[in-house]
Amino acid sequence: MQTYSGKRSSSLPALTLDDGATVAPVTLAYEAWGQLSPERDNVILLCHALTGDAHARDESRPDDPRAGWWNPLVGPGRVFDTDRYYVICSNVLGSCYGSTGPTSPHPQDCQPYRLRFPLVSVGDMVHAQRALLATLGVTRLKAVAGGSLGGLQSLEWALANPALVERAIIIGAAPQLSAQGLAIDDIARQAIMADARWRGGEYPPDDGPDAGLALARMLAMLTYTSAEGLEQRFGGRLASPTNANADHWPTFGPRLDVETYLHHQGEKLARRFDANTYLYLSSAMDRYVASPAAVARIQARTLAVGMSSDWLYPATQVKALALAISDAGGHARYAEIVSPDGHDAFLKEWDQLDALLRPFLDD
Amino acid sequence: MQTYSGKRSSSLPALTLDDGATVAPVTLAYEAWGQLSPERDNVILLCHALTGDAHARDESRPDDPRAGWWNPLVGPGRVFDTDRYYVICSNVLGSCYGSTGPTSPHPQDCQPYRLRFPLVSVGDMVHAQRALLATLGVTRLKAVAGGSLGGLQSLEWALANPALVERAIIIGAAPQLSAQGLAIDDIARQAIMADARWRGGEYPPDDGPDAGLALARMLAMLTYTSAEGLEQRFGGRLASPTNANADHWPTFGPRLDVETYLHHQGEKLARRFDANTYLYLSSAMDRYVASPAAVARIQARTLAVGMSSDWLYPATQVKALALAISDAGGHARYAEIVSPDGHDAFLKEWDQLDALLRPFLDD
Repeated sequence: MQTYSGKRSSSLPALTLDDGATVAPVTLAYEAWGQLSPERDNVILLCHALTGDAHARDESRPDDPRAGWWNPLVGPGRVFDTDRYYVICSNVLGSCYGSTGPTSPHPQDCQPYRLRFPLVSVGDMVHAQRALLATLGVTRLKAVAGGSLGGLQSLEWALANPALVERAIIIGAAPQLSAQGLAIDDIARQAIMADARWRGGEYPPDDGPDAGLALARMLAMLTYTSAEGLEQRFGGRLASPTNANADHWPTFGPRLDVETYLHHQGEKLARRFDANTYLYLSSAMDRYVASPAAVARIQARTLAVGMSSDWLYPATQVKALALAISDAGGHARYAEIVSPDGHDAFLKEWDQLDALLRPFLDD
Repeated sequence: MQTYSGKRSSSLPALTLDDGATVAPVTLAYEAWGQLSPERDNVILLCHALTGDAHARDESRPDDPRAGWWNPLVGPGRVFDTDRYYVICSNVLGSCYGSTGPTSPHPQDCQPYRLRFPLVSVGDMVHAQRALLATLGVTRLKAVAGGSLGGLQSLEWALANPALVERAIIIGAAPQLSAQGLAIDDIARQAIMADARWRGGEYPPDDGPDAGLALARMLAMLTYTSAEGLEQRFGGRLASPTNANADHWPTFGPRLDVETYLHHQGEKLARRFDANTYLYLSSAMDRYVASPAAVARIQARTLAVGMSSDWLYPATQVKALALAISDAGGHARYAEIVSPDGHDAFLKEWDQLDALLRPFLDD
């Protein structure tokens, strides 16, 4: 696992989580761009997805879309305009990129928490972000935005703090994951725990259940893509000789381009992410349920963005969220990104994102 | 693994497979119902799916849909009318229910073949069935029918033996699996091979990679169901206390009804099926490609049946197959089973199957 720490971090003495446990101390890694106004009223919070980090923008490579996860949208003159806004992104509570989570040392014995870490909820992530902002003297948000697990945080911010959020951008997220999505996530977690090297969660930092984590990622990648996107890109094409793992073929290893692509994605995540952390964050995503009564409390001007080929949070569910807010008297609009890239379109369709988000923030 | 042998079996001295290897001897387990006519012209061949067997009909429990996989469709006066037809079903070559496959003894050392078994193709399964029928003096089929992998066999019968098949019923199958389907099957096989108890395929018969096989089955079950079907049946409902594996929950085990359902399905298959066999048969399904030129050779009257919520072989692909046959001058009709049960509808929607298949066979 590579470790990555945000450029800054903030320490909080303690946080009590939804499940009743208290974590102390809590470190939150974050990055920020732009200037905080004297009135502290120009803050936009960006929320990252499941295996993401605080690095939404890369200042040294601002034009490389892969250098920071929302790089093309963050910067001077961009959607999240750092000439006007103080844009901040923190690594979520429970993650492994600088914030306190299962890989952090337990205060009693300085050994990693591992499964001693309490269950984390999306609500806990938002509480932690609110506490972090308070250390900066910030209480209100000009906007909160995110996709996938980041979209759930955006939704949770808007419904848990109705008076503190001016605008909420919720992309590829809905009040509850479908039974199919829940089932896939469960199978992914089982794949991690079925790996003998998981050892009940007690694996050494450098000898974790990489094969299981890779399988989990391969499955998750399927839910981030779409049938049409995979068909267009790969079809049933045989892997090129340089990609095919010829040694594996007699034992039913990857044979097709789509298979070697997924294997590569799986192995890449296993190198950069922690397996226990994956269990915690994937479970937080699954356990998130925003009740109709909670959704009705939203006062923020809300932009709910669905993606036409999204399988994990189908566009119809995102649209229904916008309607539920409007029906309850709130201000919500629905917009759709048309893309074959499935759930991942919020990390790819830069022009459409720009065209949708820019007028919403300026409106 | 439970073993199940068909009520009869036939021995063939040898079969040379598509990949060039020869398997000798070959045993094919089969069951048959009804009387073979003196002219041997009343034969209907039923082809089973991936983990199926020859037991399409259960004579002692003819009204229990679970006692034989097509029980409600086979018998006196039923769609596959045993008063008129000689209905036969054989366990496919490469399977573990009585026919020769990876669990069979290798003639050289009487140890199971395991991965020494050659790759089996759908074409090989059909060759084996044809050889079996020849031992009974049967050369022509009144009809061949099957769903899923059985549908691929039905398709292959029709295109490989244009003059020998009068009618072909192809359900939930198409000339090629989608990239998404291929990817899921690959992940399922990886889950088996990632299980430390798989041991490169060299596991003892009673100590195989049950956890990996269960994971593979859980994934496959997802492709046999549909998003709408799972939502209707389970939604995000918590597992009832009797189902939930409370011991597992702190370590992220199954928590929801949909999860315990899938776990149960996974464990059930692991008890009754062989992991290496799963690799071979799943791979045969993935490698099947019927070219347009081959499809154009079909002369059989063909009924292609799609299922409205099928995810593995979407109805649009089954419909396209029927059109391709018609466009090439063949006789093909398309019909659709409307069901929330996804790919598995061909094992559940008895009334619709009866209504579609009966007139086609009598036409």
